[in-house]
Amino acid sequence: MSSRVRRIFRSVGDGVDLIVFANSTDPHVDVSFMYATGLTDGLFEGCAAFCYPDGGAEIATSALEEEAAKKSGVPLHRFFTREERETQYRKLLKGHRRIGLNFSEITHKAAEELWKFAPKAKFVDVSQAVMKARLVKEPDEIGSLRKAARVASRAFEDIVEDIRPGRQESSVAADLVYAMQRRGASGASFRTIVGSGPNSAEPHYTAGPRNIRKGDLIVIDFGARWNLYCSDVTRTVVVGKPSLRQRTMHEIVRRAQSESLARMRPGAKAKAVDAVARGVIDATEFKGRFIHGLGHSVGLAVHDGGAMNQASDLVLRRNMVFTNEPGVYVPGFGGVRIEDDVLITDRGPELLSTVRRDLIEL
Amino acid sequence: MSSRVRRIFRSVGDGVDLIVFANSTDPHVDVSFMYATGLTDGLFEGCAAFCYPDGGAEIATSALEEEAAKKSGVPLHRFFTREERETQYRKLLKGHRRIGLNFSEITHKAAEELWKFAPKAKFVDVSQAVMKARLVKEPDEIGSLRKAARVASRAFEDIVEDIRPGRQESSVAADLVYAMQRRGASGASFRTIVGSGPNSAEPHYTAGPRNIRKGDLIVIDFGARWNLYCSDVTRTVVVGKPSLRQRTMHEIVRRAQSESLARMRPGAKAKAVDAVARGVIDATEFKGRFIHGLGHSVGLAVHDGGAMNQASDLVLRRNMVFTNEPGVYVPGFGGVRIEDDVLITDRGPELLSTVRRDLIEL
Repeated sequence: MSSRVRRIFRSVGDGVDLIVFANSTDPHVDVSFMYATGLTDGLFEGCAAFCYPDGGAEIATSALEEEAAKKSGVPLHRFFTREERETQYRKLLKGHRRIGLNFSEITHKAAEELWKFAPKAKFVDVSQAVMKARLVKEPDEIGSLRKAARVASRAFEDIVEDIRPGRQESSVAADLVYAMQRRGASGASFRTIVGSGPNSAEPHYTAGPRNIRKGDLIVIDFGARWNLYCSDVTRTVVVGKPSLRQRTMHEIVRRAQSESLARMRPGAKAKAVDAVARGVIDATEFKGRFIHGLGHSVGLAVHDGGAMNQASDLVLRRNMVFTNEPGVYVPGFGGVRIEDDVLITDRGPELLSTVRRDLIEL
Repeated sequence: MSSRVRRIFRSVGDGVDLIVFANSTDPHVDVSFMYATGLTDGLFEGCAAFCYPDGGAEIATSALEEEAAKKSGVPLHRFFTREERETQYRKLLKGHRRIGLNFSEITHKAAEELWKFAPKAKFVDVSQAVMKARLVKEPDEIGSLRKAARVASRAFEDIVEDIRPGRQESSVAADLVYAMQRRGASGASFRTIVGSGPNSAEPHYTAGPRNIRKGDLIVIDFGARWNLYCSDVTRTVVVGKPSLRQRTMHEIVRRAQSESLARMRPGAKAKAVDAVARGVIDATEFKGRFIHGLGHSVGLAVHDGGAMNQASDLVLRRNMVFTNEPGVYVPGFGGVRIEDDVLITDRGPELLSTVRRDLIEL
C-alpha cells in the first residue's frame, strides 16, 4: 500500500516526515489505518500506523491484534501493556520534527497523548491530504465498491416482492441484510433504513416495529460491505397504487437525480452538481423539502470524506465514487429518496448500483 | 434524561458550566449525545448536545435530523448551512467560561472548532465523568441490555445445530445475524466473528470464505442491538469429537471464567477479577496465551468505556454490566473464548447471556 502512503505525502507537501493514524476504542478508529496498511480484517483498537514519505509503514499493535496485523507484511511493534505501548510509540515518534495526524478521525484524547509522547514535534493536520487520497479510488478499490453495490442491488431485488401490508419495517430490514450476506457481503455497511408511511419523511430513521400499510411510501436505504468497502443505495417503493402526489414526488426526485447525474463528470464542481438537483426540486411545490446534500464520497467508510453539497469546494475527478441521492420529505406525509453509487469516469458517470429507478408499486 | 446529565455534572464538579457532546461524521459520533438526550434513533452527524448543570439539554441539529431530534423533547436549534451551524454553536457557547468535552469521543477537529467558536472559554476533559455515569446503568438501560443479551443467546441456539463441515464461516455469520434480527434486534452490535480452525486463534478475526472442517474449533463472537444497547457474547464449538488438547483448552478457559465470575461483586477491583482468570490460565501450559483483558463495560457502545484488565483502576459497582471473556489462542492451532454479559448486583453476578457454557460438540 506504499502507493497510497506516497499519495498522501504528496498532497501534504510541507515538510511532514511522519504521518500517524492512531486508533482509539471502536468505533473511534480511523479507517485510514486500514487504507495505509492494506489490512482488510481486525479491529486494531489502541493501535497505530506510522507512515513515511517513501511509502513505508510500520504498525504498533497490541498482542490481541498481532496475528491480524501480520497480514499487512509491514514491520510490527508489539505491546502487551500500556507501558510497553508508550515505549513503542515514543520510539517510533522519536526524531520526527513535523508529524501529520488525521484531525478528522483521531480523538482529541489520542492526539493529546501523541503530543505528550513527542513534546518537541510539531503536529499538523493532514486530514485534507488523507481525504484527497482516499477520494480517488484505485482499481482494486473500485472492484470492491462495484461488488458492494451489485450485491446490495441484487439483494434488494431478492426481497422487494415480499414487502406487503402487515409486515414490520424491521422484518423487511432483516430480510434485506440477510440477502446481502447470503450474496457474500461481510455485513450491512450501516443500519438499514426501512421507513414506511410518515417514517419515510425522516431521512435517518432506521427501522422499527411499525406495520406497513396499503398506500405507504417506503424509503429503503441500505448498503453492503465487501472487503471493507461500502455501498449505499436507496429506493422508494409504494404499497398499492400510488396517489397522484406520491407519483409526482417520485417523478421530481427522479428527474433531480437524472439531471444531476448527467453532470457527474471529471472537472465538474460538486457544488454545481448539487445545484442542478436542488434547482429541479426547488422549482416545484416541494421547494425547500430537499433537506440534505446531494451526495457523499463512498469508500472504506459510508461517508468517506468528500461531500457533494451546497458548501462543497470539491471538483469531481476520474475514479471518485459518490452517491447521488436527492430526496423530498414532507413531515406527516412521507418522503422519497433515490440514491445510487456513481463512479466518475472519462466516459461519464457509471452507475454501480443497478436496481430499477422507477417507482416500484407492490 | 436530566438525571443522566446531572449525574455527569456531579462527577465533574470543578466549575464546569456547560458540557457539549459534538458529533462529526459517522462513525465519529459520540454515543453520549444519545445518552444525554435519550434519543434512540437518528445519526446526528455534525450535530451537538449542549448540557447544563441543572440537567437540561438543548440540541443544535441539522435540518436533516430535525424530525428525529424532536423526539427528545428538548429545545432544538436548527441549521441548514455551515454558516447557520456556526451561528447556533456560537450562541449556545456564549457566556460559558468552563466547558466540558468528552475528549475520548470527540475528534480533534471538532474540539478545535469549538475552541475557535468560544475563544475565551476554558475547555476541560469530562471523559472520566461521562464514563463513570455511563458505567452504572439505569433500570431501563438494564432492561435493554438484558433483552439484547437474551435475543443474541436465543439466536445462537437457533442456528448452532446447522453448523457443519463444508459450510462457510460467512454463511454461519449471516444466519446468526438474521436470527438476531428476526428475534427483534435492530441489528448486529458489531461485525460477527466466526473464526474456524486456525482463524479461531485470531481474537478479532471476522468471518471469511473458509469452509468449516471436521475437527475445527470455531470461535463465534456475536451481539445484538436492542434499542441502542449492545450485547457481546462468545461461544466456542467444535465440529466432531474434540481432541484432548481442545477439550483441555476449553476446560481451562471455562474455569478461568467461572472463578473470575464469582468475584464480580460490588466493591471488587476490576484488576483483581482479571487476575483471577489470568492466574487460572497462566498456571497451565497455556501461560501467556490469554492476550487480552478479561472484559469491558457494555452499554450504548460494545466497548462502553470501562475495562476489566491488568491496568484497570476501576471498582465494580451495582448495576454495571461487564463482559467476562477469557480466552486462549495458539497460532496455527486454534483458540477458545467464552464470553458472557454480566450484571453486577448486590446478590452477586447475574448472567444476562444464557447459552450453555460447556464445549458444544456438533
